[in-house]
Amino acid sequence: MIVTDNLLTTFLKTRSDTEEICAPLQIEDYVIQPIVDVSPPKWHMGHTTWFFEEFILSKYVEGYRRFHPEYAYVFNSYYESIGKRVVRTNRGNLSRPTVSEVYEYRDYVTTHLQAFLEENDDPEIYKLLEIGIHHEKQHQELLLTDIKFILGNNPLLPKYNDTFTENPVSEQISEYISIEEGIYEIGYTGNEFCYDNELGVHKVFLNKYAIANTLVTNKEYLDFINDGGYKNSLFWHAEAWDWIHTEKVKAPLYWHEIDGKYHQYTLRGLKELRVDSPITHISYYEAFAFAQWKGERLPTEFEWEAAQSFFKWGARWEWTESAYLPYPNYKKAPGALGEYNGKFMVNQKVLRGGSVATPQNHTRPTYRNFFHPHLRWQFTGLRLVKDL
Amino acid sequence: MIVTDNLLTTFLKTRSDTEEICAPLQIEDYVIQPIVDVSPPKWHMGHTTWFFEEFILSKYVEGYRRFHPEYAYVFNSYYESIGKRVVRTNRGNLSRPTVSEVYEYRDYVTTHLQAFLEENDDPEIYKLLEIGIHHEKQHQELLLTDIKFILGNNPLLPKYNDTFTENPVSEQISEYISIEEGIYEIGYTGNEFCYDNELGVHKVFLNKYAIANTLVTNKEYLDFINDGGYKNSLFWHAEAWDWIHTEKVKAPLYWHEIDGKYHQYTLRGLKELRVDSPITHISYYEAFAFAQWKGERLPTEFEWEAAQSFFKWGARWEWTESAYLPYPNYKKAPGALGEYNGKFMVNQKVLRGGSVATPQNHTRPTYRNFFHPHLRWQFTGLRLVKDL
Amino acid sequence: MIVTDNLLTTFLKTRSDTEEICAPLQIEDYVIQPIVDVSPPKWHMGHTTWFFEEFILSKYVEGYRRFHPEYAYVFNSYYESIGKRVVRTNRGNLSRPTVSEVYEYRDYVTTHLQAFLEENDDPEIYKLLEIGIHHEKQHQELLLTDIKFILGNNPLLPKYNDTFTENPVSEQISEYISIEEGIYEIGYTGNEFCYDNELGVHKVFLNKYAIANTLVTNKEYLDFINDGGYKNSLFWHAEAWDWIHTEKVKAPLYWHEIDGKYHQYTLRGLKELRVDSPITHISYYEAFAFAQWKGERLPTEFEWEAAQSFFKWGARWEWTESAYLPYPNYKKAPGALGEYNGKFMVNQKVLRGGSVATPQNHTRPTYRNFFHPHLRWQFTGLRLVKDL
Amino acid sequence: MIVTDNLLTTFLKTRSDTEEICAPLQIEDYVIQPIVDVSPPKWHMGHTTWFFEEFILSKYVEGYRRFHPEYAYVFNSYYESIGKRVVRTNRGNLSRPTVSEVYEYRDYVTTHLQAFLEENDDPEIYKLLEIGIHHEKQHQELLLTDIKFILGNNPLLPKYNDTFTENPVSEQISEYISIEEGIYEIGYTGNEFCYDNELGVHKVFLNKYAIANTLVTNKEYLDFINDGGYKNSLFWHAEAWDWIHTEKVKAPLYWHEIDGKYHQYTLRGLKELRVDSPITHISYYEAFAFAQWKGERLPTEFEWEAAQSFFKWGARWEWTESAYLPYPNYKKAPGALGEYNGKFMVNQKVLRGGSVATPQNHTRPTYRNFFHPHLRWQFTGLRLVKDL
Repeated sequence: MIVTDNLLTTFLKTRSDTEEICAPLQIEDYVIQPIVDVSPPKWHMGHTTWFFEEFILSKYVEGYRRFHPEYAYVFNSYYESIGKRVVRTNRGNLSRPTVSEVYEYRDYVTTHLQAFLEENDDPEIYKLLEIGIHHEKQHQELLLTDIKFILGNNPLLPKYNDTFTENPVSEQISEYISIEEGIYEIGYTGNEFCYDNELGVHKVFLNKYAIANTLVTNKEYLDFINDGGYKNSLFWHAEAWDWIHTEKVKAPLYWHEIDGKYHQYTLRGLKELRVDSPITHISYYEAFAFAQWKGERLPTEFEWEAAQSFFKWGARWEWTESAYLPYPNYKKAPGALGEYNGKFMVNQKVLRGGSVATPQNHTRPTYRNFFHPHLRWQFTGLRLVKDL
Repeated sequence: MIVTDNLLTTFLKTRSDTEEICAPLQIEDYVIQPIVDVSPPKWHMGHTTWFFEEFILSKYVEGYRRFHPEYAYVFNSYYESIGKRVVRTNRGNLSRPTVSEVYEYRDYVTTHLQAFLEENDDPEIYKLLEIGIHHEKQHQELLLTDIKFILGNNPLLPKYNDTFTENPVSEQISEYISIEEGIYEIGYTGNEFCYDNELGVHKVFLNKYAIANTLVTNKEYLDFINDGGYKNSLFWHAEAWDWIHTEKVKAPLYWHEIDGKYHQYTLRGLKELRVDSPITHISYYEAFAFAQWKGERLPTEFEWEAAQSFFKWGARWEWTESAYLPYPNYKKAPGALGEYNGKFMVNQKVLRGGSVATPQNHTRPTYRNFFHPHLRWQFTGLRLVKDL
Repeated sequence: MIVTDNLLTTFLKTRSDTEEICAPLQIEDYVIQPIVDVSPPKWHMGHTTWFFEEFILSKYVEGYRRFHPEYAYVFNSYYESIGKRVVRTNRGNLSRPTVSEVYEYRDYVTTHLQAFLEENDDPEIYKLLEIGIHHEKQHQELLLTDIKFILGNNPLLPKYNDTFTENPVSEQISEYISIEEGIYEIGYTGNEFCYDNELGVHKVFLNKYAIANTLVTNKEYLDFINDGGYKNSLFWHAEAWDWIHTEKVKAPLYWHEIDGKYHQYTLRGLKELRVDSPITHISYYEAFAFAQWKGERLPTEFEWEAAQSFFKWGARWEWTESAYLPYPNYKKAPGALGEYNGKFMVNQKVLRGGSVATPQNHTRPTYRNFFHPHLRWQFTGLRLVKDL
Repeated sequence: MIVTDNLLTTFLKTRSDTEEICAPLQIEDYVIQPIVDVSPPKWHMGHTTWFFEEFILSKYVEGYRRFHPEYAYVFNSYYESIGKRVVRTNRGNLSRPTVSEVYEYRDYVTTHLQAFLEENDDPEIYKLLEIGIHHEKQHQELLLTDIKFILGNNPLLPKYNDTFTENPVSEQISEYISIEEGIYEIGYTGNEFCYDNELGVHKVFLNKYAIANTLVTNKEYLDFINDGGYKNSLFWHAEAWDWIHTEKVKAPLYWHEIDGKYHQYTLRGLKELRVDSPITHISYYEAFAFAQWKGERLPTEFEWEAAQSFFKWGARWEWTESAYLPYPNYKKAPGALGEYNGKFMVNQKVLRGGSVATPQNHTRPTYRNFFHPHLRWQFTGLRLVKDL
C-alpha cells in the first residue's frame, strides 16, 4: 500500500538529496566521463529527471510541454524502445546542456510533478512515482562512486569533502556462523517497494555452510598481495588472468604505493591505508582469487540472504558467486519499464548488501545489485564462506 | 572401477577415431584458424597427444624422451601453470610442425603409451589415461565443428563428405511434459568417468514446470525471423542487441538467403533448409530472444537434468538459462589438471545434452558443456519451458 | 631584428586575444575532448601558458616559483624530453584544474613574465618569447576549430556567437594563371619570425602549370557528390576508400541533409549551405578525389608558393599534394624546442595559406601547416591545378 | 619495342621461377598469413595467375572458359573496380583452393596463354603480357620475404634452404661521394619496360650533397643500439616513438639475443649476426632515427637516383626520405590497371635500389618501391647522406 502523502515528501527529499550530493562539485566535475562505466554527474541529474518526465508528465499531464524537445534524446539511457539515445561512450562529449540548464530542468520537472501529484491520487501514477524515486536513489549511489572516480582519477587527487566516511572499522569479533542444510525462501515478500528482480519468492535448497559475520579486511588482502596472489595463475579465472595482465592490475583500485607504503584515495583525499577497514574497490575476479588463495569461497546470493540476519552489513557491496539471472516466474514489466532489469541478466555477477554510498532505506535483505565481474569503481568487498 | 584392459582398447580406438574424423581433410584444412574460437585441426591432433605426453609419459616413464622439445610449447593450450604457451589467436599462424610431423608425433606417443600401459596397472595412471581419453573425445567434437567452420567459411563452400547426417527429423509428437515441484538430486552419482564439474551431487528445489519433449525447429525459428524477431529490442539482452548490430547478425550461422530462399551450409555442402529439423548454430542470445518472442523461456540446467529421461536428446547441444558455476562442494584437482574446468566458471552459459558431433559414450545426463553466450559454431539448439 | 617593446605589447595582446576567443564559452565547453584531435579549450589555455613558464620563467628567473608543481605534467603536450605527460586521449578526462584556476595560472605567468621582460633585454629571451607568442597564436587557430567541433558535434547544435564570418564569397572571376617552367626559390628569406620548417631557402625546378586563382566552391563540390563521387573507387586512394567506408563519410564535415537540402553547422549555428562559398571541412582524401573527378590535380606546396602572389588567399587552409618533409639543410633546434616541428615530418600533408580562424599576422606565403590526410575539423579547402 | 618471341620465353621463365621459389615449401607453408602484410604463398601463385586470366585471356580469347568461376573473387587483390574481393586480412583463412588446385590453375592459364600468344602478335596484348610478367616478378620478391616471415615467425625457426645468401659483405672501401648542385633529370627515359610511376621524366634541382657509396652495416647499427638509440625520444618521429613502445621494438626484425649475443634468423636458419653485413629488416622509422643519431640523414629519392651510378646497389632496398608521390604529369592507366600504383600514393615512403630477393632484371635506377614507414619484413636497409 502506497501512502501518497509520504511519497510526495520522499520524492521532494530524494530530489534535494541528489543535489546535495553534487553540492561540493565544481562545474567542470559535472561534465566528464573518464571511463565508459562512469557517467558525468550532470547526466545522472538529467537522466533521473527525464525518467519522471517521460513516464509520468508526458503521459498523464494533459498539455504538458517538455522542458526541451531534445532532452529525451540526450538523457535517455538504455531504453531502446524509446527512440534514439546518446550512446554511453558519448555522454562525456557533451558540454551542453550546461549544468545550470540541467538544474533548471530539474526544477521544472519537480515543480510540475509536485503540482500534478497534489491534484491526483491515481495509484498507477504513484506506482510510477515510486519507481522513479528508487531509480533516482540508485543513481545517487552511482553519483557518489562516479564522482569518486572523476576526482580520484585526476593527477591532482582533489578531495570531495572533509566529512564523507567510507572506511568504517568493525567492532565485531570475526566468526563463522553455521547455517543448517534445508529449504530456504528467497525473494521479497513484504508490502514495500522492491524491484521486479526480487520478486518470484521461491524455495532454494542449501547445503550446510559457515559464513563469516564480518567482511575481509585490508590487512587480510595485503597478506594475499604479499604472498604473490596476483602472480599465481592457479587462483584466477582464465579471463581474470588475461584482465590483470592487460590492465596491469596489481592492487585494488585507488591504492597508491608511496615509498613502500600503501595509500588509498578516499573522498576526503589521499590517506594512509587503514588496515582494519574492510577491503574495497576490488573486482569479482579479485574477490574470487582471494577466496581461492584462502581455501574458502564466496557465498551464493541465496546463502547470503539466508544468513544475512546474523551479520551487520551495508558498508560494502558484497560480491557473490551467483550470476545475475531471473528468479523462477520472473516477469518483466511491459514496454520500456521492462528494460529496467531483465535485459542485463547475462554476464553479470550479483552483489548483495549495500555500501557507504547507498542512500538510506534504499537497500533490503533481498536487494540484488549486479555488475560485470571486472568492475571496481563501486565500494565492493567480500565475505567468505566455508563448506562444512 | 576402471577396467584396464578395456581402457587400453578405448584409448587406441579414441586415437584412431580422431584420425578418422580428419581423413576427409586436405592438408591445407589442418592449418588455419579463421576465428579465434576455431583451432586448426592439426593443433587439436597435437594438443590431445601432448596431454598424454605431459601428464603420463614425461612423469611416469623413466627415461622417456619427448618427441620434440618445443612441442610442449606449441601444443599446450590454457595450462598456465606449465610454462609458456602459444596464445590462442596465434595457432593459425604456424605452418610447422607439418601435418605429417603431427601424425608421427601421434604415433610416437600412442606407441610409447601403449607399451607402457601393457606393463603397468597403477590405478593412478589409468585415472590419468581415462581423463586423457575423455579430453581427446571432447576435442573430437570440437574438431568436427571447427572443420565445419573452416570449410563453411570458405567462399567455395567445399563439402566435408557425403555421409555426415547433421539434420535429423524428429518423429515424436511435440508436447510439454509437466514436472512436479520438489527436491531433485543433481550431479553425477555413477561409477563411470565424469568430469569434476559434474560432481558434488546436491539437492535442488524446483518449482512446477512444463518442458517440451522436442527441440525448436527451423520452421519455428523462421517464424521468429519473419515476425521481425531480429528487429525488436524488447526480446534481446542489452549485450545481445549490441552484438547483433556489430556483427550484422540476421539469421543463424551458415544460413544463406539465395533468391529469397534460405539454404544452409552442412558438412555435405550447401543444401536447402530442412524446415522440420531442429534449429542449430544459434547463440544463447538468439535462443533467449526466440523464447522471449514465444512468451516462454529456456530451462535451467537443473530443470533439464530433472526431466531429461522424458525426452530424446543428443542431436543438439541445448542452451540453458544457467550460468556455468561450480556445484556446492566443487573441488578442483590440484596442479595443472585443476585448470581443466574451474577457471572457465565465469561469463559462460551451460549447455546440456550432446550433439551430432559428440562421440559415442561421451555425454551423459549430468554432462555440462559451456560456451560464451555469443558463440554459434557448435551444433547448438534449444528446448522451451513454460511456467505452470 | 626583434624590437623588444613591440614584442612585449604583442605578447600581452596575444594573451588577451586567447581569452577573447574563449569569452563566449560556457565553463562546460572548456572541459571536453570529443575526439582525439580536439583538445579541451582549458587545455589550450594552460598549455600555452606552460610554454612560457617552462622555457622562460623556470629557466631564467631566479627563484621563480611555479604556479603549481603538477601543471607541467598536466599541460605538457608532446615534449617527450621533458618528463611524463598527460597522453592526448586523456586530456578530456580531467575536470581539474578548473577553468577559474587556469585563468589564475594565465594571470600569474603573464604578470611574472611582463615584470621580468620589463627588466630584461637579453635577445635570447626575446627569441623564446617570440616563439611562445607564435606558439600561442597557433593554438588560437586550434581553439576556434576545436570549439567549433565541441559545439557542432553536440546534438543541440549551439552557436558560438552571432558575428563570426566563416563563409566568405569571392568576388573574383575564376581563372587559371599560367606559371612558366623554371627554377623558383622556396622558403623564408625575410627578417621577421618564421618557423624552422620554413627555413633552408632552396631552389626548386617547376614544370609549366596553370593554377586556379580561386578556391573550389560548395557548388562544385555538390556536383561531385551528385555525380556519385563518393561511390566511385577510381577517384580515391586505397586508404581513403577504406576510410570513407569505415567512417561512413558521404559529405564534408558539418553538413546535414534536412528534407533533401544541405545545411551546414557554422559558428553562428546551423545555416543553409551557401553554394558560392569555398568548400571547407574536407579531408585531403576528399580534396584529392574531387580533383581526380575533375581531371585536374592539387598543387604541390612549391607550385602554390611560386604562384601565391597571383591570388587572394587566407580563407581556407589549402591541401597540397606535398608530403610534410624537411627542406634541404633543415636543422631542428637542440633540446625540447627541437620537438616543435621535426618529429611530425612523416605521414602528414602540407597545407598552405591560412584560414578564417588564423590570427592576424600569423601566416605568410612560406608558412607550412600540416595535418594527417583524414582530418577535417580545420577550415580546409582546395585549389586546382592543370598541367600544361 | 617489345620483341614478342623473347617475351614469350620470359613469360614461361617467370612462371617457372615462381614455382622454383616455392619448391622448398611444405604444403602447410603455402596457406598462412601471420600478419596482414604477409600473404599466403598460394595466394601469390593464384593472384599472379588471375592477373593474366583477367586482363588477357578473359578479354581477348574468344570462348575462353575460366578455370573456376570463383577464383576471380578469391585471387583479386586491390582491384576495387572489378567486383568483390577477399579482404586482405582474410587471405590466411582460406584452406581452399588447395595448393595442388592452384598449381593446376597455373598450368591451365600458362598453357592457354602460351597457345594464344603463339597465334597472336597484337602489340596491345604483348603490352599487357609484359605488365603481367613484371607484376609476377614483383610478387616473387614478396614471396621470398613472406616465406621468410612465415618461417622466421615460427617458434621452431625452420630454414628455407641451405643456399640462399642474404647477407653479402661489401668489399668496397666506404666513402662519401660529392654531388654538385644543379638540375638533374629524374625518371625513366629508356625503351624497355617501366612502371607508370617512373614516367614523367622531369627536372629536379639538387643542392650539393655527399652520399655514402656503401650501406650502413650491422656493426654501425649495433653501436646505435648500445648507445641507447631506442631509448632517446629525440631521435624519433612522434609516431615512431609510439610505435616502438606499442610494438616493443628494441632491435631489427629477426634479431634474437641469446646469451648476450645477437643472432639473426635467415633463410638458412638461425645464425650468429654477421657484423660486417649491411643492416636489414629495419623500418623507415629506425632508419631515420639511426641517421639522426649519426647526425646525418637519408637521401631523397632524387639524390639517390642522381648518384646511383657511383655505388653498387641491389642488396637492400634502401629507405629514402621521399614520400611516395606522383611525378609531374603522372597519368594513371584507365580502368582497373590504373589501380596498380596511383592509389597507394599517400602515407608511404619510397625505397630505391633492389634487394637479395629481387628477381634478375626486375629493378632499374629509376625503379620506385614503396612501403608504409613501420614495415620491416622486406630486406630493407639504408645509406647515409651529408649536407655540404
